[in-house]
Amino acid sequence: MPRPNSADTHGGGADEPSGGAGRRGGGGGRPARGEFATIDRLARRLARRGRGSGTGETWIGDDAAVLRPPAGWMVLTTDVVVAGVHGDLALMGVDDLGWRAMVASVSDVAAMGARPGHAVVAVAAGGDADVEGLYEGIAAASEEYDCPVVGGDLSGVAGPGTAATLVVSVAMTGEVAEAPPPVRRGEARAGHTLFVTGPLGASAAGLRALRAGQGEGPLGDAYRRPRARVAEGDAARRAGASAMVDVSDGLAGDLARLATASGVGFELTELPVAAGAEQEDAVGGGEDFELVIATGRPDVLADHFAACGLRPPLAIGACVTDPARRTLLGHPLPAGGWEHVLGPS
Amino acid sequence: MPRPNSADTHGGGADEPSGGAGRRGGGGGRPARGEFATIDRLARRLARRGRGSGTGETWIGDDAAVLRPPAGWMVLTTDVVVAGVHGDLALMGVDDLGWRAMVASVSDVAAMGARPGHAVVAVAAGGDADVEGLYEGIAAASEEYDCPVVGGDLSGVAGPGTAATLVVSVAMTGEVAEAPPPVRRGEARAGHTLFVTGPLGASAAGLRALRAGQGEGPLGDAYRRPRARVAEGDAARRAGASAMVDVSDGLAGDLARLATASGVGFELTELPVAAGAEQEDAVGGGEDFELVIATGRPDVLADHFAACGLRPPLAIGACVTDPARRTLLGHPLPAGGWEHVLGPS
Repeated sequence: MPRPNSADTHGGGADEPSGGAGRRGGGGGRPARGEFATIDRLARRLARRGRGSGTGETWIGDDAAVLRPPAGWMVLTTDVVVAGVHGDLALMGVDDLGWRAMVASVSDVAAMGARPGHAVVAVAAGGDADVEGLYEGIAAASEEYDCPVVGGDLSGVAGPGTAATLVVSVAMTGEVAEAPPPVRRGEARAGHTLFVTGPLGASAAGLRALRAGQGEGPLGDAYRRPRARVAEGDAARRAGASAMVDVSDGLAGDLARLATASGVGFELTELPVAAGAEQEDAVGGGEDFELVIATGRPDVLADHFAACGLRPPLAIGACVTDPARRTLLGHPLPAGGWEHVLGPS
Repeated sequence: MPRPNSADTHGGGADEPSGGAGRRGGGGGRPARGEFATIDRLARRLARRGRGSGTGETWIGDDAAVLRPPAGWMVLTTDVVVAGVHGDLALMGVDDLGWRAMVASVSDVAAMGARPGHAVVAVAAGGDADVEGLYEGIAAASEEYDCPVVGGDLSGVAGPGTAATLVVSVAMTGEVAEAPPPVRRGEARAGHTLFVTGPLGASAAGLRALRAGQGEGPLGDAYRRPRARVAEGDAARRAGASAMVDVSDGLAGDLARLATASGVGFELTELPVAAGAEQEDAVGGGEDFELVIATGRPDVLADHFAACGLRPPLAIGACVTDPARRTLLGHPLPAGGWEHVLGPS
């Protein structure tokens, strides 16, 4: 029978079927008895941690959450995070994995210049996975970014070798209430200045430090608990940024996407490297979640950041007319070939 | 380094890094080279299949989709579907799994009396999983329910034994443009009549038929390609329904959730059983996706359904004051204990 291992956290946990597991067929990994109630409890706490429910809103507890639509523009994104792929649970807690799943989506929202709205979280977990720990990290990010989790779903996984499987999918809305509209990635033009919101490579360097058993401190935190730049994205949009992306896959790849979408090339003259990181980390390391911003009005951008009390954006170069020209410090910068970019160091 | 096996289908496939897999660490299951481009192509086709893009909307191709917010009320839901748990790929195609993932969310939207809006799809897939086939079913449901897929994410999975792993998470918005508002599950009152939108148990019976090698025809289709009742949900809302849920986990469990949320009991006097199904299928079988509707105005409901050209809703009983009283044909009906309800047959 269908949906045997599924616990829709929209629904009331008290009435989740707890018997009949054998008859309901399907695979292994059914959440332990009582886990439905655990998830329901966690989910309800998640909802309360965020903004107070507005008039007429219903969060967890129905087939779907009922929300007031955002004003202006809405953005919608999803990210999937997999234990062992996006995070090594030998080096980080399962709560960190939950944090990272949420922050990946918050960063997507920030890269549009939007504010996080509401999240829904879908989890597929093997029998050994610590789902409650996962939700702790999700809750922490929900609180930090003022983004209530208003629904979710939980499933077991089937088959041998999947006891530790943990797949977390976050979908998130965001809002831009007033003009200017969300910042796409396709409106950068030749001559526009390129900025990043901070030095790069800390997450990649943090992973290396963790692997060396030296992950205590800011570098390890950069990997385990990366931060999204919501205020910076909002300020960039208000300052008239022409294009923006977040550094989720690495500067080389993410900037290449911006350039391709905009039909421009780029010449990078600066590479801000995070303390403790190396140039290669800054070029190819992902999940720093700094924003790359293009703008034809660099002074306005700097002024807006200052007015908002934000760290000054760092100019790294400019867009150029020839879309085939993509250079870093005079060297070609292929989208995925960072390992060959800087040469022997 | 982070996000090694992730292909954000918001982004342009052409610039996805295709090298450096070894250096990017993480686990196995990295999508084959060229798969980024495949997914991007599929995703773009998905977006085109749905409604035409409205003024100023941007679907796939950025960090997040930019959408016009719905008028009135917005609903938001997510469902996760796992191969081997929610569908046996020996009995159904991987395209059917994609269809079911989408329809689970469409049904949640329908159960609020809302119309599907936009979907985002996150997939975690082992190296042997047929992601392109999956997207075929997602695309078919997107078209059928006029719900464009405006973004997504794709990841590999790590570890031995995970080559066939396939986890599909769909998140979906829905819209109720005009009053009455979305129908929650908590406003049923004693004396309200309970209806279902059709006979139950076809999906469970279809699974049994497929297992017996007799899955050709309507029963097998009911399992492989269940349908959501969007028009029926909308009509019920307009007719003043007091509470509504979809039958995703089985009538016993889903009706129990409605009753608990509303603080009522129920007495079911009818059990409409689908052709080819048995009573037990109709009580405990999930994913029929028929709707359970409570209303204090049963004649209005019937009139609305007739006016919309819909199959007449089937009265199955009524809500009663005592929340502890939950009966089917005079027998107690526990939320999860359908296997003991009907006795030997």
